[in-house]
Amino acid sequence: MHFTSEQRLDDGVLEREFTLGEIPGILWTPTSASAPAPLILLGHPGGLHKMYPRLVARARHAAAEGFAAATIELPGSGERPRWPAAEQARADLRRALEAGEPVDDEIIDALILPLVEQAAPEWRGALDVVLSLPEIGGPVGYSGGVISLGIRLAVVEPRISAAVLFAGSFVPRAMFEEARQVTIPLHVLLQWDDEGNDRQAALDLFDALGTKEKTLHANLGGHTGVPQFAGDAAAQFLTRHLK
Amino acid sequence: MHFTSEQRLDDGVLEREFTLGEIPGILWTPTSASAPAPLILLGHPGGLHKMYPRLVARARHAAAEGFAAATIELPGSGERPRWPAAEQARADLRRALEAGEPVDDEIIDALILPLVEQAAPEWRGALDVVLSLPEIGGPVGYSGGVISLGIRLAVVEPRISAAVLFAGSFVPRAMFEEARQVTIPLHVLLQWDDEGNDRQAALDLFDALGTKEKTLHANLGGHTGVPQFAGDAAAQFLTRHLK
Repeated sequence: MHFTSEQRLDDGVLEREFTLGEIPGILWTPTSASAPAPLILLGHPGGLHKMYPRLVARARHAAAEGFAAATIELPGSGERPRWPAAEQARADLRRALEAGEPVDDEIIDALILPLVEQAAPEWRGALDVVLSLPEIGGPVGYSGGVISLGIRLAVVEPRISAAVLFAGSFVPRAMFEEARQVTIPLHVLLQWDDEGNDRQAALDLFDALGTKEKTLHANLGGHTGVPQFAGDAAAQFLTRHLK
Repeated sequence: MHFTSEQRLDDGVLEREFTLGEIPGILWTPTSASAPAPLILLGHPGGLHKMYPRLVARARHAAAEGFAAATIELPGSGERPRWPAAEQARADLRRALEAGEPVDDEIIDALILPLVEQAAPEWRGALDVVLSLPEIGGPVGYSGGVISLGIRLAVVEPRISAAVLFAGSFVPRAMFEEARQVTIPLHVLLQWDDEGNDRQAALDLFDALGTKEKTLHANLGGHTGVPQFAGDAAAQFLTRHLK
């Protein structure tokens, strides 16, 4: 882990950009913490620069509750090398949505499955490194981003003890089976009017999740319109399970 | 309004039973309040005595937030005169559920529509009387009970400014149209594994609600298994909108 920049935000949060090999990432820690802070991994759809305003807002919210927060870039996004197969799948998806056509399973598989395969070990590697810092302790929560990656991490990474999942991206059929294996508490956010999302598939996925504690919070509005109170409720869920 | 009993609960809540004509009811007020308290109308499925433990728990929760709470018996329930047509519909419903058959629209209409027609004016009358007490002010929230009655009250009673609806009872087709007319903020609770409820109809009803602010909180468990954290979230919703 190589820190490339460091700045103190005005509300007592230390923000450090880093690289892990070729993967850029950002770590936020509350400077007021006297003990190692529990950690929230901040998921996102890819593109750290573009997503920065929303990520830092979530990190500040987390820090105010005493959490550290960390994120890394997704493969094929931001400054990382393009991924031709994923670009093709994204173009195919856009074309289908614009034409008002149903989205083929093949497109969704091509878009999501390789991403999950590559990203999950990268996030686990980042977790190894971040948890080795003296100012970061546990437990660990995961929040947001590509829901299939959240499900994969919830299944394979035993250090993650609760997760907020954002049901806002297409889900490969194979992930429904994987969803049954999740056993940690989950808080699922669904935007009811998300044009680029399949609402019924999101409800089916919620149904498939195997854990004994899961809550679905559905709110009016499009993909980026999660209301403030819904963000607060998701934060409360993590606080309840990680503190 | 005729008070028939009065007792001080151990946590600073004054509980008074009353009758309004032939309709029994209960009023809970926080004794520590210095100003007229906002009010939450506590809905229920009928049967004040049977429901008392859960009602008083909700009233105490409300009082701790500074709210008064009130409820009245539903027509045909508890000590009120039986209602042969509703009893027949209830028996038909039970038979269909036990046989695993789909429930006819006629059964649902017969069970719910006359209840809503009679109960809504009774709850509005109770609101007139309760709001005339000096210790009760406004605004007014409605919470729980038969969802069709909650929708009717949300539409016809302008003094109700926010409502928690429990999607746990069958809904007549006619109520879907009425749902489009609701404009107040709504917080809808759904128990995902409620055997005596039609989950898809509940989701369709949430979709039909016309208000610009609505949230669905779906949780695992059966009809009576609403988790503590979900009750807390519903209480927070009312506090956010009524204070």
